This record gives sequence, C-alpha cells and structure tokens, in this order.
Amino acid sequence: MNTNKLYELSEKADKILNGESSDNIKDIIKELKPIISPFKQGSIGIAQLNPIVGDIEYNSKKIMKYISYATSIDLDIIVFPELAIMGYPIEDTIDRHPIIVDENIKWLKEIAKLTTTTTAIVGFVEPRKIKNKTGKKYYNSLAVISNGKIQSIIRKSLLPNYSEFNDYRYIEPSPIVGAQPAETLENFDEENIITQPKTNKINNIKYGISICEDCWNNKTFFASTLYEKDPIDELSKEKPNVFINCSASPSRAKKEQLKHNMLSFISENYKTPMVYANQVGAIDNSSFDGSSRVFDRDGKLLARAKSFEEQFLIVNPLQGIGKIYPLTKGLEKSLTEEKVFTLNYENDLERTYKTIIQGVRDYFNKNGLKRACLGLSGGLDSTVCAVLMADALGKENIYGISMPSKITSKESRSDAEKLANNLGINFAEIPIKEMVDTTNKMFDNLFKQVEKNWDCRYKKSFTQDNIQARSRAMYLWGIANEFASCVPIATSDKSELYMGYATINGDMSGGFAPIADVPKTKLFAFARWMNKNRPEKNAIPEAIILKRPGAELAIDERTGKPLIAEDALMPYEFLDEVIWRIENKHEYYKDMINSEFLYEKNNEVSKEQKEEWLDKFYRRMSTSLYKWSILPPSVIVESRSINKYDYKQPITSSHINYKGSDSKEIEQKLKEVIL
Amino acid sequence: MNTNKLYELSEKADKILNGESSDNIKDIIKELKPIISPFKQGSIGIAQLNPIVGDIEYNSKKIMKYISYATSIDLDIIVFPELAIMGYPIEDTIDRHPIIVDENIKWLKEIAKLTTTTTAIVGFVEPRKIKNKTGKKYYNSLAVISNGKIQSIIRKSLLPNYSEFNDYRYIEPSPIVGAQPAETLENFDEENIITQPKTNKINNIKYGISICEDCWNNKTFFASTLYEKDPIDELSKEKPNVFINCSASPSRAKKEQLKHNMLSFISENYKTPMVYANQVGAIDNSSFDGSSRVFDRDGKLLARAKSFEEQFLIVNPLQGIGKIYPLTKGLEKSLTEEKVFTLNYENDLERTYKTIIQGVRDYFNKNGLKRACLGLSGGLDSTVCAVLMADALGKENIYGISMPSKITSKESRSDAEKLANNLGINFAEIPIKEMVDTTNKMFDNLFKQVEKNWDCRYKKSFTQDNIQARSRAMYLWGIANEFASCVPIATSDKSELYMGYATINGDMSGGFAPIADVPKTKLFAFARWMNKNRPEKNAIPEAIILKRPGAELAIDERTGKPLIAEDALMPYEFLDEVIWRIENKHEYYKDMINSEFLYEKNNEVSKEQKEEWLDKFYRRMSTSLYKWSILPPSVIVESRSINKYDYKQPITSSHINYKGSDSKEIEQKLKEVIL
Repeated sequence: MNTNKLYELSEKADKILNGESSDNIKDIIKELKPIISPFKQGSIGIAQLNPIVGDIEYNSKKIMKYISYATSIDLDIIVFPELAIMGYPIEDTIDRHPIIVDENIKWLKEIAKLTTTTTAIVGFVEPRKIKNKTGKKYYNSLAVISNGKIQSIIRKSLLPNYSEFNDYRYIEPSPIVGAQPAETLENFDEENIITQPKTNKINNIKYGISICEDCWNNKTFFASTLYEKDPIDELSKEKPNVFINCSASPSRAKKEQLKHNMLSFISENYKTPMVYANQVGAIDNSSFDGSSRVFDRDGKLLARAKSFEEQFLIVNPLQGIGKIYPLTKGLEKSLTEEKVFTLNYENDLERTYKTIIQGVRDYFNKNGLKRACLGLSGGLDSTVCAVLMADALGKENIYGISMPSKITSKESRSDAEKLANNLGINFAEIPIKEMVDTTNKMFDNLFKQVEKNWDCRYKKSFTQDNIQARSRAMYLWGIANEFASCVPIATSDKSELYMGYATINGDMSGGFAPIADVPKTKLFAFARWMNKNRPEKNAIPEAIILKRPGAELAIDERTGKPLIAEDALMPYEFLDEVIWRIENKHEYYKDMINSEFLYEKNNEVSKEQKEEWLDKFYRRMSTSLYKWSILPPSVIVESRSINKYDYKQPITSSHINYKGSDSKEIEQKLKEVIL
Repeated sequence: MNTNKLYELSEKADKILNGESSDNIKDIIKELKPIISPFKQGSIGIAQLNPIVGDIEYNSKKIMKYISYATSIDLDIIVFPELAIMGYPIEDTIDRHPIIVDENIKWLKEIAKLTTTTTAIVGFVEPRKIKNKTGKKYYNSLAVISNGKIQSIIRKSLLPNYSEFNDYRYIEPSPIVGAQPAETLENFDEENIITQPKTNKINNIKYGISICEDCWNNKTFFASTLYEKDPIDELSKEKPNVFINCSASPSRAKKEQLKHNMLSFISENYKTPMVYANQVGAIDNSSFDGSSRVFDRDGKLLARAKSFEEQFLIVNPLQGIGKIYPLTKGLEKSLTEEKVFTLNYENDLERTYKTIIQGVRDYFNKNGLKRACLGLSGGLDSTVCAVLMADALGKENIYGISMPSKITSKESRSDAEKLANNLGINFAEIPIKEMVDTTNKMFDNLFKQVEKNWDCRYKKSFTQDNIQARSRAMYLWGIANEFASCVPIATSDKSELYMGYATINGDMSGGFAPIADVPKTKLFAFARWMNKNRPEKNAIPEAIILKRPGAELAIDERTGKPLIAEDALMPYEFLDEVIWRIENKHEYYKDMINSEFLYEKNNEVSKEQKEEWLDKFYRRMSTSLYKWSILPPSVIVESRSINKYDYKQPITSSHINYKGSDSKEIEQKLKEVIL
C-alpha cells in the first residue's frame, strides 16, 4: 500500500486539530476513512500529546477530541501517553489535593461514556481500594474504554524512583501485570485478583499493554535491572499479537539509542511488534521528546512520530503500515560518545536546542507567561540565552538589556547591541554606574558601622563584583514587576554553577535558567551550531564566540584587564572533563589524577597544576550546593545534572573527603581518640 | 538499685566526651565501672549522637571514642543511630560519589579491628554484591562488631520514600530481616541466603535488631501500613529477649505521641523490651530530636534520653535500669490537636523553638558559617527570626539592621532598636532612601525605553514595594560578602509563603529561612512564649506583638496608612486554618465552604466573603509554587510543609481546578469538542 496519501492527510488533520489550520476536519476524514478501511483490523492511532500537568479539563478535552477523530476515521485503537488525563509527573500533589484525583476519575468516566467503536487507552491516577490496607494510596493506571464504557484496567508494576522520577512516593506497584476487569476500578482487591487473560482482545487481535518503566526491565538486554519482575515477559506468555506501551519519558543525552535498541530487542525477542506512545512537551525541568514509535515482529523500526511536536500517528503494526519521521540529530547518535570525553558536541546540538526550546516555551505558555528580559553582556552565556529565548517565545517578546559598568569594554557593549539587532529582539541600554555608586556609598556607611562590632572583614571581597551583578538583576526584576507576563532569565551555565561562579540575586536569579545544564565548552559549539542552523544565519557575532569568557565584574590585578574566568577557575576544557567524569563515570579525585585528560593531550600540565585544579574543583563544588538548591527551574539536558529535581545532595555535606584515605591513616586517626 | 549516682556520673562523662568539661574521663570511668558491674549482663549504652553527613572521619572518630568509653566501663553493648558512620540522610551522593561508600567501609573495618569486649552496633552504607543483578546499588546496614571483628550484618528491609525521606532512591530493601554472617559484607548473595538465627546473641542474651522504618509497620497498631512485611514480627518468632532499633527520625509536629504509643505497643505486644536509638542534630531542612528510649516488656517507659542534645544513655532493659529525662514540651502532648484547628499553640512551642534552634545552629556550624545579619523591620517575622538567631548562634554573632524607608513608621524604627538592645545583638541603622531614589530614577529611564516596544505596563504594580525589599536584601548580602562566615536571613513565614506574599531577591532571599514553616498565628503565640521562657524575659517589645502585620512597603489608598497584610490577603486566623485543613485533612474548596471555621465562630463572615478568600487563597497559592522552589533551606517544623524537600508539586500546575466540577458539566464540556 502507498502510504504517502495517508500521512499527507494525517498531517493536515494534525494541523487542524492543534489549531494551526482552519480547514474543515470533516473533509480530511472523508478522504482518510476509505484509505484506512483496508487495514482497519489492528489499526492504531498514537496520540502523542502535550498535556498540562494537573489541568484535567484541558487534557481531557484534548483526549476526547482525538478519540472522536480516531472514531470518525474508524481506527481500532487510539493510544495516549502515560497518565494522559493528569499529565506526568504530578508528584505529591495527588496526596495533598486528592480532589484532583476525584476529578480525573470523573472525567475518565465521562470520556468513557462518549466512546463508541474505537477503543481508547487512557492513562489516569487511580485510588486504591480502601480494603487494601497495605501500601500507598494510588495506582498509575490505564483504562481501556469503548462502546460507552470502561472495558478493563491496566496498572503499572514498576515504579521508577531515580533522577527526576518519583513514582514510588505515592503510587503502589501493581501486584499483577496486564488487564483486570473494569469493575476493579477504584476497587481492585489485591488479595482476590481475578484470573483472566492479562492481554486485551480488540477486534480479534490480542494486545499486551503496559506502562512506561514496565518495559525497561528485560533481563537479557540489560546487564543488570532494577526490579525482579519483567511485565513484558509475563505478558508474552499469553502470546499477544502486539505490545503497547504508554510512556512519559523525557529527553536526556545518550538515552535515545538505548531506548531504540531496547524496544527493538523486545519486539524481536518475543516476535511481537511493539507500539510505544510517548508524551511530548515540557513540565518544569523535564522536556519530553515524543518520538513515539513502532517496531515490527523482527525488531525493525516500522514507524516513528516526530520529535518535540504533537502528532497523531496512524499505524498498523501487523500489516506493516507506518512512517518513519526523521529523528532530531542527537537523538539518533549519542551512545557512541559514552566512554570518552570529547569536545565534539556536534552530534547532540540539535537535540540540545530542541530540548531547551521546548522546555522554555512550555514553561512560559503553561504558566501564563509570555515575555522575558535578560541582561546582554556581550558574553557567551547571555548571548546563547538570548537566541534560545527569542526562538522559544518570539523575538518581539524578548527584551535584551545592556547594562554596562565601568569594567564593561566597548566591544562588549557593541557586541550586545549587534546581537540584539541580528536577532530582532528589543534592546535597551542602561548603565549601572549610578546604582553601583549609590550602593557603594551606602555600603561604606553600613560597613563602617558593622566593623565597629565585627572583625574578619575580608581584605579582598567579592562585594564589588556582586554589587554589579545584583544591580543588573534589580533592573531585570523591575521590568518583570512593571510589565505583565514577563520574567527575567538566569543566564548561568553548568560549568560555572558547578564552581559556584554565579552571583546570588544576580546572574543566577531569574524565573527560568535555560542553559543551567549546558557546560561551557558545549556552549561554544552550540553557538556555532545556531549560527549555522537557524533560519537567520550568523546571528551571533563571531567576536562573542572568540572572546575568552569573563564576567567583567573585576579587574585582574596581574593584567590590569577584566578577569578571565579560566584564570579564576581553571581551563573550561579541563573543568568540563572533571564534571563529565564525575557524572558519567562516577570517578573520584585519584581516578582523575591517574588518567590522562583530553586537555593534557594538547597542553603541558604539571602534576601539581592538575592537583591544584582538582583541589579547587572539589573545594568550590562543596560550597556551591546551596546555590544549586535555590536555582530557578531549568531544563535537564545532559545524561546527569545538578538540577535539584534530578540530583539530591544535602547542602550540609561540605566536609566530604572526595580524595579518600588509606587504611593505615585511618587506623592511626582512630587510635588517637581511644580513651 | 539507686541509679542516681549512675546518671550523675554519666552526665559528667557526657560533658567530658563532648568537650564541655576538661575533667579527666578516667576518674569517671573508675567510679562508673563498679556501679555498672552488677548489671553488666544486658547493659546497653545508647550513643545518641549528632553526625555530620558525609564527614566520615568526624563521625567515625566520634563513634570510636564512644566505643572505647563503653568498653572501659564494661557495657555489653553500645548502639548508634541509623547510618552512624555516614550520617543520615546522604541522598544521591552515594550514587554520584561512590568513593564515600568505599571510605565508610574502610573506616568501619578499622573501627571493628579496634573493638574488644563491648559489642558495637554501627550503621553504614553497604554496597551490594555485584552478582545480585537486580535492584539498587546499596543496602542501609548495621554491623555488629566486637573482639576485633565484624560479627554479623543487619540490613534495612523497609525503605521510606515520602516527605523528606528518599531511602528507596539508591537503597535496596533487604530480602531478609535480622542478622546475616559477617562474610556477607559487600558480598550478600540474595539468592543464597544463609539460614541462621536472625537474632544476635550477645553475652547470652538474644537481641532482635532492626533499622528505623523496620519498626513502623505493625499491622495491629496501624489501621493501614505502607509495606507487606513486618520485620519486628518476623524477629519476634525467635523470641528475642530485647529488641533494638537504630533510627534517624526527625522532629515533626504530632509525631512524638504516635511514636511513643507505637514503641510501647510493640514491646507490650511481644512482651519484649524495645531499645530505640535515635539520631540527634540537624541536616539542612531536617531537625532530629533524639529522645532515644527504652520500653520494658510491659510497654512501660523505662528510660528516655534528652531531646535535642547528644547523650550517652546507659540502660539495662532486662534489669530495669534506666532514667527518664523530661521530654521537650510539645513532643509530649501534641496528638490531641490533630482533629481540630486551634489557635492554642502552647503545647507545641517549646518543641518548635528547639527544633528551629538546633536546625539553625547545626546548619551554620556544620557548614562553617558563624554569623548572620538580618533586617529588623519592627515587625513580627524579623523579630522572631532575630531572637531565634541570637539564641542559636550567640548574640555577638548577629547583626540586626534597621533599614527604614519613607513608609517606615517611627514606632517600627524604635521597636527594632529596642528589640536589638534587649537581645544584646549588634545593631545598625541605614536608610534605604538613596538606594530607592536612585533605583527609581534608573527605572524611570529604563521603563521609558521598554515601554517603546512593550505594551501591558501595569497601572498598579509591585515595583515600588519590591525596590524597597530588594534594596534591603542588597545591604544584607553586601554584609555577607564583606564579613567572613556571615549569611543573611530570609524572614518569610509560612502563611505568607503560601500566599506568595514575599519578595524574590528581597525578604525571601537569604542563606537560611528559620520560620518558613511557622504560620503567622503561631508566631504570635511563639513570640509571647519566648518572652516568658527565655532567660531574659520580655525581650520582644509588646508593641511588636500587638501590631497588625504589614510589610510597610506600600500605603493603603483607603486608609492613607501602611498597608496591613490581612487587608491585602485575608485574616491570618482564616488563612492559617485553610493551610491547616489542606495539609492535615486534605480538604478542598467545597469541604471548606461547607464547614465552619474557627474564625467564623467569632466573626460574622458572609458566604461571598468566604468564597472570595478561598478563591484568593487558591489563586495565590497556585502562582506561589515558583517561590517555594527557590526558597533557601529552612527547618521543617509542622507535620506537613511546603518545604521542597518534603513536598513536591510541579510549578507548572497552576491550572489545577481545586474546586472540582460535577459530572453534568463535564459531559457538556466533552461533548463540545467532539468533531
């Protein structure tokens, strides 16, 4: 069958359904129906949607609209991502505000009543039966609905509780895999589980249905697994014709190839096609890539939805109907880089771009925000942020403010203005001199008073540097207070946050931090990539990319010029490799001392120098934990991060000895305290 | 036996061991040994210690010192709290930095080598055997050590994953309760569990040993439980003579009575004494109360250690040796208040005070901080913070800064100064006028530029209010930058944080937020309690307590006087009851409409007024989530909180419908979207 027409029409329908086109959906339906008719049996519509977490009305109406569309073109099944009615992740909200769980059940029941011939698979939060006296309050469930009612319920067995996932906090793992009768809704008695097929028969085809993590535990594919049970393996015992998995899986570096291989392995291993429906869109720190897909019974990719876009993808895994939309670059090829640190970020830049753009856009849209202002220093961080914000929210919604101080070079000022012009964003310049002068005057007075009673005034403090950063933040928050739906942007990058090289209430303050999970060396590559790949080429002046980064907050006494960040910290190439080794290889001090860094291949580094940098790294990192804890929301981009929703370390752990000690030394120290 | 002498000497020893006294410990030991000798068999020393999380050397040396003390007075056993070598909670740190797990094993082994006749029970993080291919990386374990070696290992079975607890993220639940052989250290093969007694025999007495959550799952005591398994019940099968439980359980309102009753129930039910050793001290947001204790076989309290203090408590549960130290008030009687909202906070104020004082003190001490500065506005929040900080860190380490604006009343200024004098803290006054004027001048210029391109400038904005709050924070962070080991204090209270009634980079900014979990109505009672119960009586001027709260940031147009917070929000008594009903009873909008508030008993409130307040509450709460996410560390005090380490709600959930809807309405809305 020639599927060109099918997908051409589907794409038109998508545009109508998401409001991008005002064509009449009925016309499309009339054309689509006869095309689908020959492969109706086993046809599935994957509704890769972008929910708003907790906005049950919004999500439900969208679900209903797509069900009615799927029904009108006479598909067997429409499948939605995990927790579609609620949106994922809802976190502790369901515990504190159980009304929203009641609501999601009410909407589910009303949706079910309105279904007819097409079967819909819809995720929701299900309260557990009160008689189940043991365990948590809820299940993460799917309802299989058609012909005006709920036909059966499937409950998630494996609950992730690592990184940004907190399913296990209020969700009980299901003791049984697969389908249970509709009567068990809110009434599932775990002690009297009804014996019945775990698979769902729909139009004479048998489906093995599971939820997200349930399919991530294959004992052959993974060298080690997190859970005892493998739901897919259990479902396979009933020899389903097709697996369906409803997911909400965010984009992280290096995850795509793994996911692809795993799903392919499962379908081949069980000789059963796999339909994987993923959430798209962002919620706070998590950006979900979509890229829903279908593998045939030989593990071959048959269909794949778009990445970072809503789409309704029509497939028939048994009849070979599908279309493979291109993957975002970086989703495609990232596993190759796993073992060695490299400065060649090329592979992952498109994914990085789309992950952040979606993260920013959804955070703003879903929270009723519209506009952003940010300081334009003429440096790399604020430049990349400006481009991302302009692309995410529209250039007219961005205000770039140049706020020069006496340290700011003429070049920085003109670079900032050039950038704003190139991007077409709004631009204003306002010096901070008067603010800084007034603050200094007041500080002189204040410190003189404080000094009367307190010793230990620093001979060399960061007060001057910080006054500048905070004056700038004062301006930006002022704009946000004065102009509706606007928030300022925190421009700190990952490398500098690791080092605490960011000012509290200054550059690290804002309503959102777009590049908080992008290391500095990647930002250089990212800037060049954007210059090459955005519709307007070379928006970022070359001078900005060539300049050695520095906050222009202080003068380096040795050079008489603005302090260069690498001189205050260490070479970024070295710093980023330390971060990479810790996050990806769990290395510690001595591992790093004993191995050669990429930087060392190209530069002479003495052992003392390397130790000094590593000492500085750990010292600074240990005292940066507080800053990580107050960082504004930001998109998680890399495979590991310091985002507080992803990584938890007590602030009060600054005494950790990251170097380790040897047993002799330990014995000696212990003997000393014996009475 | 007369135990007076025993505890008199122990207390002296405690003072020596924690450095408060320079007497010779040998003299005490010489006196203690013959007193203990008659009840040596079954004697236990509970080492209720305050660890520094991740500081393995500090914790281990302390452990070793106490082991050598226990040995020198010839006790059978010394028991430490959960994860004693590592400190609790270590969170994800063990995953990212496995070196610290290696370290804790090394120190454990060296400690074991140095033990002799007294058996020590020491908590640590244990790596799982690599052959166990399923599950997480670590166990939360105890080592039973004596005579130079590890005798056996006990692993935690029940892993809490709610509120501030995240055990399940990187810890695997033990498949078996009780003791396994020493050879299983780092080598526990879950598929070949060695059959042996689960209890530990020490000097011919049989102990059933467990870890924290393991004892919180009695199916008779609790109406519902979180886990299937009950480790205590399993241990009881071997008829141990004594239960021992090693814990790290933080202080929360209403928890103590429950804990007391539960432990008493367990010992009586199994006719087995229970020895419960709890961690003391604070880590970030959690303040652990200690109050370790012993119940006899009839469930009667035999011994209880001090609350919020380190102590080494010597007991013999089989021979009735123990001493009951008084509980902090509020730990004693708080369960009574569970069902009804009350303004009578008296019961809980001492606990609140000690919880926060310890929280502040340990955060500062353990992070190398020493001093704090805060704005003194003459209002209740900053006043209570000033008292707490002075008591926690010493008055000489606190700087109170009065930063009046043109709105600040003369009374506020003099109240602030009076308070500072009464407390004996350092005081300075510096007006913010020039800062505000300069900022305004710059803002005029800036906004004029922005206005050229952006519409929707607010007619009435919070810009003016916020300039003042931010100028003050600028001063405070300035002091922190200029004077060593100092951080500013964020003075926001719980009621106002719920309403987002706090300025970003203003009053809600700081290194620590002492009262972020104390509602406003409680603060009034708290202030009076402090006036009555601190050594210096009435340090807080009565005028401050009598004044109606208001930030003095804006003038109320209707009155021409500074805006009163209750006029901008709603009566605090009403507001705090809404918070209380949500957090404690999980109520929603309509539950509250349909029940009578305490405030309504004493005040005429129309239905429209009540709806208006509730609408405002939910509207403001929904848009405050971002502020909660960037709040500095603060002590969790109440039974539920908005502290981000305790309660997780996506910021992007502002569209939640907290009112609920009815099925007819839902049906209608769904029908509208059908194609």
